[in-house]
Amino acid sequence: MIPRYSRPEMVAIWAPEAKFAIWFEIEAHATDALAELGVVPREAAAALWRWWDTKPTIDVAAIDAIEAVTKHDVIAFLTWVSEQVGPEARFMHQGMTSSDVLDTCLSVQLARATDLLLADLDRLLEVLKRRALEHKMTPTIGRSHGIHAEPVTFGLKLAQAYAEFDRNRQRLIAARADIATCAISGAVGTFANIDPRVETHVADKLGLAVEPVSTQVIPRDRHAMYFATLGVIASSIERLATEVRHLQRTEVLEAEEYFSPGQKGSSAMPHKRNPVLTENLTGLARMVRGYVTPALENVALWHERDISHSSVERYIGPDATITLDFALARLTGVIDKLLVYPERMQKNLDRMGGLVHSQRVLLALTQAGISREDSYRLVQQNAMKVWESDGALSLLELLKADPEVSARLSAAELEDKFDLGYHLAQVDVIFDRVFGTK
Amino acid sequence: MIPRYSRPEMVAIWAPEAKFAIWFEIEAHATDALAELGVVPREAAAALWRWWDTKPTIDVAAIDAIEAVTKHDVIAFLTWVSEQVGPEARFMHQGMTSSDVLDTCLSVQLARATDLLLADLDRLLEVLKRRALEHKMTPTIGRSHGIHAEPVTFGLKLAQAYAEFDRNRQRLIAARADIATCAISGAVGTFANIDPRVETHVADKLGLAVEPVSTQVIPRDRHAMYFATLGVIASSIERLATEVRHLQRTEVLEAEEYFSPGQKGSSAMPHKRNPVLTENLTGLARMVRGYVTPALENVALWHERDISHSSVERYIGPDATITLDFALARLTGVIDKLLVYPERMQKNLDRMGGLVHSQRVLLALTQAGISREDSYRLVQQNAMKVWESDGALSLLELLKADPEVSARLSAAELEDKFDLGYHLAQVDVIFDRVFGTK
Amino acid sequence: MIPRYSRPEMVAIWAPEAKFAIWFEIEAHATDALAELGVVPREAAAALWRWWDTKPTIDVAAIDAIEAVTKHDVIAFLTWVSEQVGPEARFMHQGMTSSDVLDTCLSVQLARATDLLLADLDRLLEVLKRRALEHKMTPTIGRSHGIHAEPVTFGLKLAQAYAEFDRNRQRLIAARADIATCAISGAVGTFANIDPRVETHVADKLGLAVEPVSTQVIPRDRHAMYFATLGVIASSIERLATEVRHLQRTEVLEAEEYFSPGQKGSSAMPHKRNPVLTENLTGLARMVRGYVTPALENVALWHERDISHSSVERYIGPDATITLDFALARLTGVIDKLLVYPERMQKNLDRMGGLVHSQRVLLALTQAGISREDSYRLVQQNAMKVWESDGALSLLELLKADPEVSARLSAAELEDKFDLGYHLAQVDVIFDRVFGTK
Amino acid sequence: MIPRYSRPEMVAIWAPEAKFAIWFEIEAHATDALAELGVVPREAAAALWRWWDTKPTIDVAAIDAIEAVTKHDVIAFLTWVSEQVGPEARFMHQGMTSSDVLDTCLSVQLARATDLLLADLDRLLEVLKRRALEHKMTPTIGRSHGIHAEPVTFGLKLAQAYAEFDRNRQRLIAARADIATCAISGAVGTFANIDPRVETHVADKLGLAVEPVSTQVIPRDRHAMYFATLGVIASSIERLATEVRHLQRTEVLEAEEYFSPGQKGSSAMPHKRNPVLTENLTGLARMVRGYVTPALENVALWHERDISHSSVERYIGPDATITLDFALARLTGVIDKLLVYPERMQKNLDRMGGLVHSQRVLLALTQAGISREDSYRLVQQNAMKVWESDGALSLLELLKADPEVSARLSAAELEDKFDLGYHLAQVDVIFDRVFGTK
Repeated sequence: MIPRYSRPEMVAIWAPEAKFAIWFEIEAHATDALAELGVVPREAAAALWRWWDTKPTIDVAAIDAIEAVTKHDVIAFLTWVSEQVGPEARFMHQGMTSSDVLDTCLSVQLARATDLLLADLDRLLEVLKRRALEHKMTPTIGRSHGIHAEPVTFGLKLAQAYAEFDRNRQRLIAARADIATCAISGAVGTFANIDPRVETHVADKLGLAVEPVSTQVIPRDRHAMYFATLGVIASSIERLATEVRHLQRTEVLEAEEYFSPGQKGSSAMPHKRNPVLTENLTGLARMVRGYVTPALENVALWHERDISHSSVERYIGPDATITLDFALARLTGVIDKLLVYPERMQKNLDRMGGLVHSQRVLLALTQAGISREDSYRLVQQNAMKVWESDGALSLLELLKADPEVSARLSAAELEDKFDLGYHLAQVDVIFDRVFGTK
Repeated sequence: MIPRYSRPEMVAIWAPEAKFAIWFEIEAHATDALAELGVVPREAAAALWRWWDTKPTIDVAAIDAIEAVTKHDVIAFLTWVSEQVGPEARFMHQGMTSSDVLDTCLSVQLARATDLLLADLDRLLEVLKRRALEHKMTPTIGRSHGIHAEPVTFGLKLAQAYAEFDRNRQRLIAARADIATCAISGAVGTFANIDPRVETHVADKLGLAVEPVSTQVIPRDRHAMYFATLGVIASSIERLATEVRHLQRTEVLEAEEYFSPGQKGSSAMPHKRNPVLTENLTGLARMVRGYVTPALENVALWHERDISHSSVERYIGPDATITLDFALARLTGVIDKLLVYPERMQKNLDRMGGLVHSQRVLLALTQAGISREDSYRLVQQNAMKVWESDGALSLLELLKADPEVSARLSAAELEDKFDLGYHLAQVDVIFDRVFGTK
Repeated sequence: MIPRYSRPEMVAIWAPEAKFAIWFEIEAHATDALAELGVVPREAAAALWRWWDTKPTIDVAAIDAIEAVTKHDVIAFLTWVSEQVGPEARFMHQGMTSSDVLDTCLSVQLARATDLLLADLDRLLEVLKRRALEHKMTPTIGRSHGIHAEPVTFGLKLAQAYAEFDRNRQRLIAARADIATCAISGAVGTFANIDPRVETHVADKLGLAVEPVSTQVIPRDRHAMYFATLGVIASSIERLATEVRHLQRTEVLEAEEYFSPGQKGSSAMPHKRNPVLTENLTGLARMVRGYVTPALENVALWHERDISHSSVERYIGPDATITLDFALARLTGVIDKLLVYPERMQKNLDRMGGLVHSQRVLLALTQAGISREDSYRLVQQNAMKVWESDGALSLLELLKADPEVSARLSAAELEDKFDLGYHLAQVDVIFDRVFGTK
Repeated sequence: MIPRYSRPEMVAIWAPEAKFAIWFEIEAHATDALAELGVVPREAAAALWRWWDTKPTIDVAAIDAIEAVTKHDVIAFLTWVSEQVGPEARFMHQGMTSSDVLDTCLSVQLARATDLLLADLDRLLEVLKRRALEHKMTPTIGRSHGIHAEPVTFGLKLAQAYAEFDRNRQRLIAARADIATCAISGAVGTFANIDPRVETHVADKLGLAVEPVSTQVIPRDRHAMYFATLGVIASSIERLATEVRHLQRTEVLEAEEYFSPGQKGSSAMPHKRNPVLTENLTGLARMVRGYVTPALENVALWHERDISHSSVERYIGPDATITLDFALARLTGVIDKLLVYPERMQKNLDRMGGLVHSQRVLLALTQAGISREDSYRLVQQNAMKVWESDGALSLLELLKADPEVSARLSAAELEDKFDLGYHLAQVDVIFDRVFGTK
């Protein structure tokens, strides 16, 4: 966890206090169920909750001190709770195994982390939608291979991102369902010492599903799928960040990360406004992706469990969710405040002197009765002049002036072929597909 | 693609002939739609289908020869089809861009590949269920950390695998939906030269969804999610393969990969039956997992597309699906024919002389009024004798003979604590959860 | 192995014929050593070599047919050789285990593959050096964050790449030493049935080092290091490919991948020359990097070996080396023929109207006695005008015309601060460091 | 950084105080060189060192507070130093760029981290050597595929690990050389505003090599190679950890992680001593491997630099080195105190009733004139009886009692074939290769 790439709400989920609070809830709910089943006295559960209602501060240092002696984190916690609650607390944890608490707690933490990430995605989607609608008809050149291709709108770029993050939202909801399960099934998953109804009760109270069949632990294919999904979302972040980085290049400069009016650029160079936020997002995406493989390697635990997954999860549980939360928020800020320069987009569009329309002219000449070969030659020779002028000449003007062309196509017909509107005619259809707006 | 790790049905999906056939169908369906819209003559589409109805052989070499000249695969294909069909074929591909064909074809190939993988999973699930039910009550020792813990049944191990692969089946269905989309939207996704209804028609005919908003290409977050899902499935394969490898170890030998009765082991050593199939599966899982990261790196294409993803997909499209198909089939065969040795399982269970029951005895002594400390000491001193005898002594017999113990617990009471049935009482509940069978 | 990303010489190394030829040499050299030790008749070795001297064609199909029966590749090979050579061949392989042959063969194949890769690097280095010297003093704008920073030369960019690939060459030489070892040590590496001198002899003949201590196999940390090194080289390829892709962008266009004068661009758009080769290299780099993790996962084989590494190596042995060989050759071709546009570089350099020199002016004003704050204000207000003119105004001219500035710095002094030569004064020093040329 | 997987000496390298101290040294040495070149007054450098000689406490909070205003870490640091040192400090950093400080500092940190890792490896090698010599002749069964193969010694296993970690030591020395470079070359690496001799001086003082050609930054192929090397070492850790985990399995139990005599096992089950340290090492290895891919992705920075690598390095710089340092120390502790059970090794060796010797008997029968087929049948039928007895019968005794066998081989001759010494005859040779000891 790197403080500068962390936000407090997500960090709080992974704090020791939060973990111990979840442990307590698991134990107390289980004690409720055990009392209901007649295994422990009802007073045992009641005592636990009475203490909890006092909103006690969890003394992490005290628990750690006990663990230093017992070498066992769950026992240390239970001991400390017993000291606070009194003798009734001795009925806690009856028939349970440490993993019942640890794994179910991880499920709760990941589910809560996911709720934050889903809220992050909602905010990002909202911003993407607003800016997409704002620039729905802002023309800009579409590029394939980094080379000018045909016109699009800036709104379309953002609509694409919206659709992509909306897919990610669906995937994250599925991933949440995958990890939000509860297992209280004992040392090897057989419920030998604990009634399965305890598990059902705790799952219900914590908003988790029941793990149908566990070993000592919840199976790690669930977590692998979860972290793989985070890796996909990170890759989408990298894609949009890369788009911004490209648009902010000195020679392109169609958009820029926000800087306040009074903000100094680097020294005396006003052009030196660097896309440092999106570059940073590119690096953060690499990290979240890097956590996917360890999560996949965690699946093949030996027999009813080994503990090799545990250290991996101590790293990637917090690191992947905290980093992704920060990255989504940062990306939302970048898009929210992105400085968009439609004039520059138009200038870049015009830069090729109308070459992007050459295909339509070619087709029109063919339809006007010129052979494809001759049409190609006519367009090509004029296009080449435009190209060599580095945008100083206009293809439209050259074609109008070319007698072979003007013999077949009038100035008005030619101008029609240079109409941007032709390219943007279906933007409404696409926006309707993405946003359901007409 | 490694022939020895490939099965013909999956390989066929990736053959040039299959690809060209899909290309043809995309083009011909698109021509149908264009004819319906009045863009091209109805006869153009009819001519295409008439030729197709003759079930023509696709001459890959001829198409390759044209590509060697044109340096463009889709043009080469269209040229060859025109040579076969005649002049009406010139109306094909009107307003389309190569990626419309290439990307939609990849969707079809991945969707078909997924159908094979789903069928593989169905067969695996069927076999897992059969063997799980067969060994539902076959006792075996549960192990955590590779160390004996408490009894489970062999059927429970397989039920766990069943539940895991059933989850994988659900994930794969979601992943299929993610990649089964159709984009026929032109050079930068604006439908500038083609009506969106063509896309809808082709999607419908090919059983694909319409891509709501594409650039020149279908967005690669879809493929990233797909290959990530294959990586999770591969990891589950590794988990079950690792279980078999452990069970077949000389000292454990609770199960073995099948060998035919007449089959010679390695030379004169009848014990030298190696779990080579599951070791192989472990390696194959590494490969399928290795394809996840390149797929994630493919997401951040530049602007409306660059072509860096293409080479990656030429490798991992076939390699990941072919390898996973082979691996699932191999795993199914391993489980189907797995030699299971219940006597040996019992022998290993007994190996610790009943130590796995020590906790129940401890609890019984406490309940019989001995302090927890004294109970622990009593059990511990007898347990240690059993342990030092390496299984020659029996904990039950030692406890019966220990006057301090027998003063509180009768022989019958002690025997009751050594009852395996206690551990297996909830197996029905778990099986019901997993299989819905009582 | 994807044919379009493969070159014949590297493919040949991985062909069955090449593999069997290496197997033969291992066996024949081992038989020589066994004869020398008196373990087998000298005539046995002589007969093998006599047959080999006839340059026999290796009948892969025949060997495969035998393997279909014996289910063992090495035995199938030995059987086929025996059929060709006659009874003396029965002394082959005495005391050896299959892995002795398989692993040593892999070492030979990887060593040969590395020799091709080193030759690839040599060619790339030669081309980089030539083009670096050619453009040693071609000024171009240096960019940080994609934003104009200060001038560099195009030769410096290539010198940087030269130094990077020279480091990669050193790393690959180290990696070759890591995998070029020979193990002929029997079933568990104890030489129980074979004298260690056989290993020494074979190693010597094949140009390999002796593996100091093997198990049944050569330890896989060696191969992990090897494939990790290939992954680093692939990443360097991606870096240089990315540089070219950026330079070829429509708005930048300082360099382009070669196209022949007569070559048609995409349709009638002469600007549509796509950097498809370097985009392709970016994808290929992803694949070679993707093979690193499976190679790392191969290290932890169980005990004296399991066979999980084998399937991984069947994929990545050929795929990583063939792909990297192709990629290095493609990159060499790209750099060799790269179209470099110094005028455009100068135009881009000038595009900011001299803003890149603003820091030097700032310093000069300070040294001329103006406070740092005032100097900054003076430069900033003129720089902003240039910036807002999008390169139409010149900073130098504005400064000359600014009375506050001209009061302190003469026109000549100002011009001196706009001297590109200032930035390039140390190019010689750097080139001398990299190429040892003055 | 996870406290429980961290050791203070390595953590200290990555503390802000350590970073700022290195920054100071870089700046002060650079000022020395600048003074020597006459660019700044000698007194400027002297003042810096005078202050430094007072061993001032670096006030991280104060520097952070300045950074909160300036938004620039290096400027904040320089400002704070100026406040401490006085006006002479204004000559610091002349002509330098932030990356000169940041990148060179990272080199120093990684070099220091590597020195700790090399010391870790030295300790591990020392322990491996001691235990290898201790168990040089302790017989144990060698296993391929987890199945008994032929005898080895436990010392051989450790000698193998020794050789592997010795290779890792060599690799790490090479990796250290790769990252221990100094770049003080200005904004785009041209030394436009700073003499290259400053770089040479600072490099010399800090024990770094001079970076022959940098951009704004030190090229990241160096760091990629470095982290890839850590990934290889982590994989070797996993291998040895996996070996211990296997040996500690209940059924094998040839070795155990240390537990103190008084230490309670889990509850009353004395056999429940879990190999938790080596399982933990397995997980830690996954993490260190997981950092390799982000490091590889960092190589392809745009042009003269983008800052995407920075966030990645903030994670993996500390995390990879701290985790590996901890893991090496933990592994050293495990091997140092490993409980080795030679009797159990012998018992396991004997478990197969001598089947591991069957091949030698087979050969002897053949040499005694029995056909290979008959020899095989004779051995096989006796071996099968042993196998079916699960080790209760002895192959040697059965063979002695078999009239067909005893007709050809005397009891003494048979016993000779069951001699373990035959398998261990070359152990000296191997140890001499590895340790240079005879």
